[in-house]
Amino acid sequence: MTEVATTFVPGHVTGFFTVDRDDDPTKTGSRGAGLALTEGVTVTVRPATETAVTLNGETVTVEAIERVLGALQVTADVRASTELPVGSGFGVSGAMALGTALAVNDVFGRGLSTYELATVAHGAEVQAGTGLGDVVAQLHGGVPVRLEPGGPQRNHMDAVPARSRIEYVTFGELSTADVIGGETDAISRSGEQALSTLVQDPTLETLFEASRSFARETGLLTEDVRETVMDVGEAGGTATMGMLGATVVALDTGLSDAGYDPQVCAVDPTGATLCPPTDESADTE
Amino acid sequence: MTEVATTFVPGHVTGFFTVDRDDDPTKTGSRGAGLALTEGVTVTVRPATETAVTLNGETVTVEAIERVLGALQVTADVRASTELPVGSGFGVSGAMALGTALAVNDVFGRGLSTYELATVAHGAEVQAGTGLGDVVAQLHGGVPVRLEPGGPQRNHMDAVPARSRIEYVTFGELSTADVIGGETDAISRSGEQALSTLVQDPTLETLFEASRSFARETGLLTEDVRETVMDVGEAGGTATMGMLGATVVALDTGLSDAGYDPQVCAVDPTGATLCPPTDESADTE
Repeated sequence: MTEVATTFVPGHVTGFFTVDRDDDPTKTGSRGAGLALTEGVTVTVRPATETAVTLNGETVTVEAIERVLGALQVTADVRASTELPVGSGFGVSGAMALGTALAVNDVFGRGLSTYELATVAHGAEVQAGTGLGDVVAQLHGGVPVRLEPGGPQRNHMDAVPARSRIEYVTFGELSTADVIGGETDAISRSGEQALSTLVQDPTLETLFEASRSFARETGLLTEDVRETVMDVGEAGGTATMGMLGATVVALDTGLSDAGYDPQVCAVDPTGATLCPPTDESADTE
Repeated sequence: MTEVATTFVPGHVTGFFTVDRDDDPTKTGSRGAGLALTEGVTVTVRPATETAVTLNGETVTVEAIERVLGALQVTADVRASTELPVGSGFGVSGAMALGTALAVNDVFGRGLSTYELATVAHGAEVQAGTGLGDVVAQLHGGVPVRLEPGGPQRNHMDAVPARSRIEYVTFGELSTADVIGGETDAISRSGEQALSTLVQDPTLETLFEASRSFARETGLLTEDVRETVMDVGEAGGTATMGMLGATVVALDTGLSDAGYDPQVCAVDPTGATLCPPTDESADTE
């Protein structure tokens, strides 16, 4: 048992997805693909007599974190910080849940494996209704392709072998719970088609093309997003909508070239990880 | 198609393993666990009319690389560099095969997925007789636990959620081909026992303890290695033999504390990855 542990979990922006429900939360999830990002969430956990959770210094209530702490049977001080926009399709809730699980295991000596901890976080996200595929993708990093739904012990993975500078802009929030809690058969059909396309040609260009088709077919595309994606295309770049947010992600300098003032990051190759004990810089709010 | 691509693949030192043979090389492999290391192999690939392979600037013949190039149907200039000792249990041949596969796919636009490329490299290592589990472990990075044998599309993974400074010393080479090509039933029984122990308590301490038992039981322990592992233990540290080499790996400052002058690296959290196109520093011999 250590006094403090810090984890970093990459953001994850989804290009396309299916919704696959099961009575067992660890079997519920989604197939699909997206990008893990070098911008993510840093989570620091300390033992505490009462649980307190902050995000960027402000007290927050995150059901997925409460479920993780409950499953691991601890009370803790959980401090998360991120530069990512919240509620805009970057997987912040999944990152907080996964980062908390990995850090709690380290601080409290719970003796669980990486995949067991990710399964706890995945199940917590599913039960909270805040995500279906982010945790698994964030565990692996890179450009993860989720071939089967469910937690990491069930989720047959692959990946697009590529890295890139990534730019994004966001126009506001979309509710993941509203979309994945509603009628999802048409979404899943479009997601399966996009996955089939990507598996045949696992490149970034095809990921973005399949994601644009998915956004159009499902009607999830908002007007702001549609116009921005078109602007990037007209400037010779490659962009798509980040699911589920009013967010546009572009390869390389796509948004800059189209005259936008985007946030800049890159594909994160690593995935969720404990920060080395000597990394004191991460141990702040 | 780009003009050049560079990859980095971590070294991998195995703690314990089984030997699982099948007529299909992609199903042949091993279960076990080890450490991916921040010291690894950088591989740079360029198109060429005739294939040439160098390691640290010297021309070498590496059957696994030739098999990878053959499977991907290219001729190429392949330049690998590493600070790791060769033939001492750090998975250099597996890293060269995997790094070559990822880089060739990028340079020649082969359109294969990450797991497909790793399957090609795994099959090449198996057929060359130079490794059974390194490629899969190197693909994932961290402290990979291989629960099922075979290539990455078949190899059910988990991991020990931990990072650490790692020290090592090496006293010379052991032949992987001699060991895995010989009588391996007793090795596999010991490996299964070690895996069972680790799965029940997936921590670094248990990984090293199970690995020491494996080294003793299988008779693979050499005298130099045995004495050094004991020295580290007597100084209060944790060490084991790196399979398959006359190599000792220790957690944290275990070898330094015991008076040795070790190489120092750390657990690599990332696994095999393309280097960003702007990383020109990697494009050297």
